[in-house]
Amino acid sequence: MRNLKAERILDIAKRRGFFWQSSLIHGAISGFYDYGHVGSMLKRKFENIWRDYFLGLDENFYEIQTSVVMPEEVFKASGHLENFVDPICKCSKCGNVMRADHILEKELKESFEGVSPEDLLKIIKKHDIRCEKCKGPLKETGVFNMLFPLKLGVGKGARTGYLTGETAQGAYVNFKLEFDSLRRRLPMGLAIIGKAFRNEISPRNVLIRMREFTQAELQIFFNPDMINEHPKFSEVKKYGLLLFPVKNRKGERIEKITCEDAVKKLKLPKFFVYHMARIQQFYLGVLGISKKSFRFRELSDEEKAFYNKYHWDIELHMETLGGFKEVAGIHYRTDHDLSGHQSVSGESMTVDINGKKVLPHVLELSFGVDRNVYALIELAYTEEKNRIVLKFPRAVSPYDAAVFPLVSKDGLDELANSVKDALRKDGFRVFYDDSGSIGRRYRRMDEIGVAACITIDYDSKKKKDVTLRDRDSMKQVRIRIKDLPAGLKRFLEGEELEKIGKLLKS
Amino acid sequence: MRNLKAERILDIAKRRGFFWQSSLIHGAISGFYDYGHVGSMLKRKFENIWRDYFLGLDENFYEIQTSVVMPEEVFKASGHLENFVDPICKCSKCGNVMRADHILEKELKESFEGVSPEDLLKIIKKHDIRCEKCKGPLKETGVFNMLFPLKLGVGKGARTGYLTGETAQGAYVNFKLEFDSLRRRLPMGLAIIGKAFRNEISPRNVLIRMREFTQAELQIFFNPDMINEHPKFSEVKKYGLLLFPVKNRKGERIEKITCEDAVKKLKLPKFFVYHMARIQQFYLGVLGISKKSFRFRELSDEEKAFYNKYHWDIELHMETLGGFKEVAGIHYRTDHDLSGHQSVSGESMTVDINGKKVLPHVLELSFGVDRNVYALIELAYTEEKNRIVLKFPRAVSPYDAAVFPLVSKDGLDELANSVKDALRKDGFRVFYDDSGSIGRRYRRMDEIGVAACITIDYDSKKKKDVTLRDRDSMKQVRIRIKDLPAGLKRFLEGEELEKIGKLLKS
Repeated sequence: MRNLKAERILDIAKRRGFFWQSSLIHGAISGFYDYGHVGSMLKRKFENIWRDYFLGLDENFYEIQTSVVMPEEVFKASGHLENFVDPICKCSKCGNVMRADHILEKELKESFEGVSPEDLLKIIKKHDIRCEKCKGPLKETGVFNMLFPLKLGVGKGARTGYLTGETAQGAYVNFKLEFDSLRRRLPMGLAIIGKAFRNEISPRNVLIRMREFTQAELQIFFNPDMINEHPKFSEVKKYGLLLFPVKNRKGERIEKITCEDAVKKLKLPKFFVYHMARIQQFYLGVLGISKKSFRFRELSDEEKAFYNKYHWDIELHMETLGGFKEVAGIHYRTDHDLSGHQSVSGESMTVDINGKKVLPHVLELSFGVDRNVYALIELAYTEEKNRIVLKFPRAVSPYDAAVFPLVSKDGLDELANSVKDALRKDGFRVFYDDSGSIGRRYRRMDEIGVAACITIDYDSKKKKDVTLRDRDSMKQVRIRIKDLPAGLKRFLEGEELEKIGKLLKS
Repeated sequence: MRNLKAERILDIAKRRGFFWQSSLIHGAISGFYDYGHVGSMLKRKFENIWRDYFLGLDENFYEIQTSVVMPEEVFKASGHLENFVDPICKCSKCGNVMRADHILEKELKESFEGVSPEDLLKIIKKHDIRCEKCKGPLKETGVFNMLFPLKLGVGKGARTGYLTGETAQGAYVNFKLEFDSLRRRLPMGLAIIGKAFRNEISPRNVLIRMREFTQAELQIFFNPDMINEHPKFSEVKKYGLLLFPVKNRKGERIEKITCEDAVKKLKLPKFFVYHMARIQQFYLGVLGISKKSFRFRELSDEEKAFYNKYHWDIELHMETLGGFKEVAGIHYRTDHDLSGHQSVSGESMTVDINGKKVLPHVLELSFGVDRNVYALIELAYTEEKNRIVLKFPRAVSPYDAAVFPLVSKDGLDELANSVKDALRKDGFRVFYDDSGSIGRRYRRMDEIGVAACITIDYDSKKKKDVTLRDRDSMKQVRIRIKDLPAGLKRFLEGEELEKIGKLLKS
């Protein structure tokens, strides 16, 4: 990740309070990041938008919050103890341990995802690949389990646990309890927004491959007999999905295929395709991602987990990372999870649906929150003649608005404070700044990506109005203070500035 | 925790989706809990209210989000490696390990907090205290470090890290970065709402002493020269604090002392007392806790950490736990934290304030989120003649309202759906339920503590109005659908039902 744009983004990220490596003063450890005051707002905004949108898809979708520490049995049931491994190789001279597939990818410029350690060793030998640190020979490959183990308690009663590698397990172990406390209906969705942990050998690409990260995942438990239908499919059948199927790998061709054609020609189940459409609408419609930056990438049999019958990644195009990168995924996991937990725990996971015993299947919508936050910043990053500006869609700005008194005297500061307090009372997230020249304050908000700047000037006292500045066009309108809450709401919903107030000559 | 009320609360907690032990199907491990769909709403509500209130205290208070995994150096600097220990004793017959102070407390019915392992051993021998499992002799005591260690990375490059035992460290390591990206002013506050982890020997009291838990902490960095003032002190000077100082331990006498008297007579600094007042107002005013259930408890020198110059716990009276229990604390930590990080990292933590070098001191407001959630439930729990009802203050209800069609036919369900959608669009959190008798649906909402139930009946179609039922009085008014958003808002703010709509005869 060495390019000018990337460096400028990291500079802004640190200088403006978005994110930086964790525990920097103590020598940061790769793969850990902290969010500053602005990044924290942006991350929460993404999480809130995600929650409202995906829980809004069905009256029977709910959020739960589960422990990140879980007992060993969970990971026996999930298969993580056995399969949550990365291929590694060790330098026989200096002892350095590397990801075997990554070092090959770096040297040979192609992907080795899903290749077995044995085969990786053959390729390493064939091309005489050497240690990236000391150039020593690489004579052995193996696997490394990414779960972090923990000893819980002390002495004889202690048990082994792990930090969870994905939030999903929290939903599976609670499926039956939630099913009973809810309506006993399928489909039922359990969402978790929480942390997951992976001891990555080589964390990289800033917020893309981290050791501690936040996921937003929705596990949809459904009756497998119903996989070829969805009550609202007709709403999306003509909607065009942007797909990059395995067969198009050569030439990187993205196709637009309607949902009904995805069912007919690609033989994807309606229940799956319906949720693909909703995901794409989330990115294009809610987050304002452009069509050319978005695609669903189908995973090949070698790439996907053995239990995933269908697995498409959602990828966004990020220049700083050299192309399309995964930010989310949609996975049809069959009954892999519930049957695993059933067999290890001895507790039945079947439910009664209209007198019939059903072991639900799982459709997983999985989002990397940090990856999405990074993508939002990178796609918003814009260099203009005299400024750098983050052009987030208005609804995604870390703050809803900034409020400034032109100067901090003559009662302007008191008026600005009352405007700010009133907006906050109405639920707006407002940044208040009263120091420095007004130009510098605007630049600062541009770099943070705040869409609306509200300034209280000398006219404000007489006329009871303020200026509202649009980050992108830098145009300003005057709007009466009493119209501000409604006007700001309309502005954030996308209304043109000119329709909200009286345009000022610039 | 064996009493009828406690058992009933745990029953509701599990049956209605508040909380239960984590990974129950796999044999839960003590000290870990999961929140179901209702508990998750209540917890987020508490966090949102906390965030709005405490960040609202000062324009220079912000939230950040930091890693829970931190490198060893952090805990060297904080003193946790050395001091984050519990006294333990081991049975020389069966090998069982117990908290030495807890087993004494249980047997001798008094507190042994802060007593050294050596002294605990003397007392154990004197009273011939035995193993709680096998009655074997207890011949040795020692200390056990509660931090969970982790190996980060693999091979030679691996580093040691720990799961953080308190969110606070995330604020300290980021102090300088945030100071520079903000206004370079003191006081500056950094809040973190996040997880912390402690390998407790004997987790107990449900959500009170957990191994994985959520904290909401605000670290206020301030100029120690200014400790005896606060610009808004005059706003609270006549406000009466409910205090339980060390000198009142005998007789358990709680005194009401105004803030100005707390400064004058108790010699507490104004900066400290101001924040005590704001905390008490949060509990009494915002969360609706009654005065008799609230107190500040001063810690004795033996009880408090050596670096805390002033340390008062906030305690709420919980019947199920046998009395007042700690739910939060206010700690004047001096420069202990920043000077520790400064000396271990070699990075200066001093800042320039008006040309003078200042090493800020820290005032910490620390809240256990899970403890507060439990307290809210226990204090809201009410048994009435024909029902159990959780009487949360309206603003704290897990959902803002429930919407029911009287029956799921004749267009009532469609109308109910449109009412629900409109309320959600206005930002209300709405539970929708269309199954079972209306009486059962009311009971369910009573047990969840939803303050407002909105029912769409046959009259609703003709008259374009609905009934709004008050959980506590069970009275109902009719209100026009178009007045509902404003009416519900007023209701949640505490307005009497009768003032919102036309009261129905019951």
